[in-house]
Amino acid sequence: MTDWGARAESLLNELATCSEPGPGVTRLPFTPEHRAAIDLLQMHMEAVGLTVALDHAGTLIGRLEGPPGSKTLLMGSHQDSVREGGAYDGIMGVVLPLLALAKLRSDGINLPFTVEILAFADEEGVRFPTALIGSRALAGTFDAAVLTMTDSQGVTLQEAMTGFGLNPEVVGTLVRNPDDVLGFVETHIEQGPVLERDDQPLGVVTAICGIERHQIEITGETGHAGTLPMSGRRDALVTAAAIVTEVDRLGQTTPDLRATVGALTVEPNVVNAVPRRVTMTAEFRSPDDASRYAAGEALHNFMQKLSTDRRTAIKAKKTYSQIAQPCDNSLSAQLAAAAKKFGASGLVLPSGATHDASAMADLCLITMLFVRCRDGVSHTPEEFATKDDMGAGILALTSFLTELDHYNCQEN
Amino acid sequence: MTDWGARAESLLNELATCSEPGPGVTRLPFTPEHRAAIDLLQMHMEAVGLTVALDHAGTLIGRLEGPPGSKTLLMGSHQDSVREGGAYDGIMGVVLPLLALAKLRSDGINLPFTVEILAFADEEGVRFPTALIGSRALAGTFDAAVLTMTDSQGVTLQEAMTGFGLNPEVVGTLVRNPDDVLGFVETHIEQGPVLERDDQPLGVVTAICGIERHQIEITGETGHAGTLPMSGRRDALVTAAAIVTEVDRLGQTTPDLRATVGALTVEPNVVNAVPRRVTMTAEFRSPDDASRYAAGEALHNFMQKLSTDRRTAIKAKKTYSQIAQPCDNSLSAQLAAAAKKFGASGLVLPSGATHDASAMADLCLITMLFVRCRDGVSHTPEEFATKDDMGAGILALTSFLTELDHYNCQEN
Repeated sequence: MTDWGARAESLLNELATCSEPGPGVTRLPFTPEHRAAIDLLQMHMEAVGLTVALDHAGTLIGRLEGPPGSKTLLMGSHQDSVREGGAYDGIMGVVLPLLALAKLRSDGINLPFTVEILAFADEEGVRFPTALIGSRALAGTFDAAVLTMTDSQGVTLQEAMTGFGLNPEVVGTLVRNPDDVLGFVETHIEQGPVLERDDQPLGVVTAICGIERHQIEITGETGHAGTLPMSGRRDALVTAAAIVTEVDRLGQTTPDLRATVGALTVEPNVVNAVPRRVTMTAEFRSPDDASRYAAGEALHNFMQKLSTDRRTAIKAKKTYSQIAQPCDNSLSAQLAAAAKKFGASGLVLPSGATHDASAMADLCLITMLFVRCRDGVSHTPEEFATKDDMGAGILALTSFLTELDHYNCQEN
Repeated sequence: MTDWGARAESLLNELATCSEPGPGVTRLPFTPEHRAAIDLLQMHMEAVGLTVALDHAGTLIGRLEGPPGSKTLLMGSHQDSVREGGAYDGIMGVVLPLLALAKLRSDGINLPFTVEILAFADEEGVRFPTALIGSRALAGTFDAAVLTMTDSQGVTLQEAMTGFGLNPEVVGTLVRNPDDVLGFVETHIEQGPVLERDDQPLGVVTAICGIERHQIEITGETGHAGTLPMSGRRDALVTAAAIVTEVDRLGQTTPDLRATVGALTVEPNVVNAVPRRVTMTAEFRSPDDASRYAAGEALHNFMQKLSTDRRTAIKAKKTYSQIAQPCDNSLSAQLAAAAKKFGASGLVLPSGATHDASAMADLCLITMLFVRCRDGVSHTPEEFATKDDMGAGILALTSFLTELDHYNCQEN
């Protein structure tokens, strides 16, 4: 009996060699490492009987044709990594559904619909200050303006794509017809500790969280820490501390909200000077947009009162906002039912991180399968998922594919 | 009638030209600028009839001899400035008592004791990582080990002093006999906002605050701000915020305590990562050592409980400690009585900053006269005291000198 998890591990280890030198995996889009990875994937896709093509957004597409006129289920994730990242984030979501199709083939099962395995070029946005090129192209949300963005070497995205043999001019034409698509299923390591804590190999995503980020600038008044009496102080850091505490309180008391002050800098930042200025960020993520908006509003009101109470100026600006993308209830329920057959309890959880599925949600119904990762870490060389958990993922995907209620997809 | 304040302003403006080029005043010890300043001071001291000498610690001493066998009242401050500092900090405390003696002389008054006007070489500790050389020499607390310290150019203190014509070998012999000294009176700009807020030209110092500094390191656990649930977080910045709030609370609720977190840095300090590590300082200053110790102890206990509650490691180390130096009640009362004759209410306040008087307290009784400074600022080119306030200071010192109960000095 084939150990599908071991096959996944072996293929991922092979793909991990398609990397710049250095610790972990560094595989940026439209590079020789990208080329090596898709050459390897193409070989494995063809071995499974897929028809393989590279679209002009750099997405490698392996297609298993179903009956004539059948709709297409899209599966996959991204081939790229961050710098000195791991061997699982993204690429595992290409390998697992591919091996699920391999298992179906070895079991002699034909699906009543078409399946495409997608390996998107760029989801991380590390090389260029944009991301999700491949998924946006399929969803029809690709903005050609990003083509003039440059990487750290001054190479434009346009030049990088052209050099890779692609024609960026036609990316706008890659948009799929929603009527032809059953949905998009993305498999990914969790990048968090929930499955590990709950002793679960697999979980199903309820929604990809919406995100908003605030840039906050607090201006008080500096002075000598010895000579400035306490009563007259307008200490920017004392005000900032109240905001850090409030952001955390909002996160602790609002269901499913993740609230974080990640960055904070103090000026002049010396032991014997009262802080004059603090700049800081506040980030809220939630699968429920209304709850996220409410938290942003609560913080705004808190800061307004605080500014008066503390006599410090507080300027806040929302610098980023992205709505939540709920997974389709029916697809997720079917995926959870499949996962339960292979050691999972059917646990569902939101995805705090963004994925290709976020962009694909503009095209079709989405769902996501999370695979447990060690210590909840990703984006480091230590990133790891066991072959047993990956094996369970492959089997769950196989079961999902064979059981899929494909007539009712895209109807809700 | 002589406008003594205008004379002080004029002499300070002249002394301000003894500076490196650039904004404000930069006059470091044992430099050509130092030489220029003491040459100018020497000329003015001699014009007032003082006998002038430079001791081997670089202290310029102008002596007005009293009756044979009389004790000596020491007055003065430091000649040096910080880099791009102002024209008042330190040097004004040499000029005002010198002009007080000039006024006595012009009034034909002879004092029944000897007075020395001291211009110490180095109080700021900007050139070398040590300070208070001159005052420590007189108090007998000079540590010859500092002679091997180097400035940013690699010049040792020993070399700098030798190059200035001094013999560092004999600094240890400069110690004064306490029995010969009536006390030390230092005049200084307040470097804080209290006199300005209370509409007072002058104030008298109750004590030079003791200081303790703590270096605090908080280690939690980082993670993706989207994927790490709130419930399991060990956010180092949330813990740090509680400490900032507590330090401020201790300062706000403890009489005369000044409590400040001046420096705080976050790692990894990015918008979408839970902070792993925060390093921060906490500084307490108080004229009352017991109250300062109690605050340090309270913070220690608070952090111990916080560390458990928040499951973050907190390492704290006391990196600096200096006891408070109370001013002599009798000298201060006489100085306050003198100040009241010239527009001051007799307001007394602690000095949050350290001064030459801190070191002189090891030799003799001390007191300090504070002169109002604009906006409470010092150590910048904007540092400023009005000629009227300086004039009031000169007259107050004159009155203090003529009225001084010099028989009872050093008896308490």
